[in-house]
Amino acid sequence: MPKIVDHAQRRTEIVHALWQVIYLNGIDGVSFRSVAEAAGISIGRVQHYFPSRSELILEGCRQIARGAEVAEGAEGTERESAGGTSESASGSAMGDLREFCLAFIPTGEAMRIGASVWYTYVARAVMDEQIGEIIRATDRATLDLGMRLVERAGGWRQEAAGDNAGTDDAGATGGEVGGADNAAALAWVMRMIALGKGLAQEVMLDERSAASAKAILEAELAELAAH
Amino acid sequence: MPKIVDHAQRRTEIVHALWQVIYLNGIDGVSFRSVAEAAGISIGRVQHYFPSRSELILEGCRQIARGAEVAEGAEGTERESAGGTSESASGSAMGDLREFCLAFIPTGEAMRIGASVWYTYVARAVMDEQIGEIIRATDRATLDLGMRLVERAGGWRQEAAGDNAGTDDAGATGGEVGGADNAAALAWVMRMIALGKGLAQEVMLDERSAASAKAILEAELAELAAH
Repeated sequence: MPKIVDHAQRRTEIVHALWQVIYLNGIDGVSFRSVAEAAGISIGRVQHYFPSRSELILEGCRQIARGAEVAEGAEGTERESAGGTSESASGSAMGDLREFCLAFIPTGEAMRIGASVWYTYVARAVMDEQIGEIIRATDRATLDLGMRLVERAGGWRQEAAGDNAGTDDAGATGGEVGGADNAAALAWVMRMIALGKGLAQEVMLDERSAASAKAILEAELAELAAH
Repeated sequence: MPKIVDHAQRRTEIVHALWQVIYLNGIDGVSFRSVAEAAGISIGRVQHYFPSRSELILEGCRQIARGAEVAEGAEGTERESAGGTSESASGSAMGDLREFCLAFIPTGEAMRIGASVWYTYVARAVMDEQIGEIIRATDRATLDLGMRLVERAGGWRQEAAGDNAGTDDAGATGGEVGGADNAAALAWVMRMIALGKGLAQEVMLDERSAASAKAILEAELAELAAH
């Protein structure tokens, strides 16, 4: 077991060095040598963990995409509370949706650098089918999670007004949420995600503070809650 | 005179070759040799027009930023109609605002490649102060234009209902548009621009059709018009 952990950690360390190289010199600056230098290890060691340069570059995209999946943290919270009472589960559904939306915004210098590496991959995705597929899969997962969260948050409002407590999946597939509601939810989530991406770009470029970007997203959330 | 035109055109041709290099190999792939090869001219000729590599890269950013300034076309139209009757000038103010918003969305393969080059510059802007400044100036100009357009479109609604015809700059600084309206206009424009950027990214990545992105922006415009 410890050996496997070491292996995963060593790979992650190399990926961090890779991001540093991409940040400073772009994807075309990536070589076994440049990544080994940035990681402070031998070229052979990099090759031991990543036999091919292109696999290393793709793994860097996968790992940064996992960070970009505003998903995971929020989903964890959501699941934890799913076993609670209807009210607390629903309260956290709105909280999770909020967390999901705000997570688009990079905060702090490390996040800005991460955002820069992410945009380097995004720019490359137009000509690189494999990178494009990783990013598209990430964005699909983000949209799916956003839909689940907004539907649960919607289910919570109906449950709070009504009586059918303890229906964990009421919002997701329940009869109460009609086709029109679903279309409205999808439109709302898609707009929110696109808005989050645009604002993230402005924060990364120091055009807007993270606080200002979050305030704009909070206003959208308040509008949803008011519906 | 013809000589000056030739000079500008030659510079533009070199910049187009530069973009091709950036698209394929990133900013770090840019050298006098790679750009000369892409342009099908001699290295000396590139150096004649761009004595330094970094000046060439910056000029490429400025020229693509000018394309990104959804600005110019719309502003031209707006100015042309400013001398007309109040109603027609105002009608085109709404049309200009619409054009301004939709221009964020890349359409066609050339635009997708241009968007990829643009994102390469955006990613680099985090560590390159000069590129950052060009992009920030572009975004400031876009926001300013957006504000002028939305205020004129707003001014038009009031003029159509009221009587003070022929006041070209009523929306911009006139007493009718109060502080609260101005803040609301600013919030609307900022949200619209961020939304346009996020949608542009999705269209570039083939996650969304240009038509679908434009439909989302049209819905925002319809909401503004309904206010």
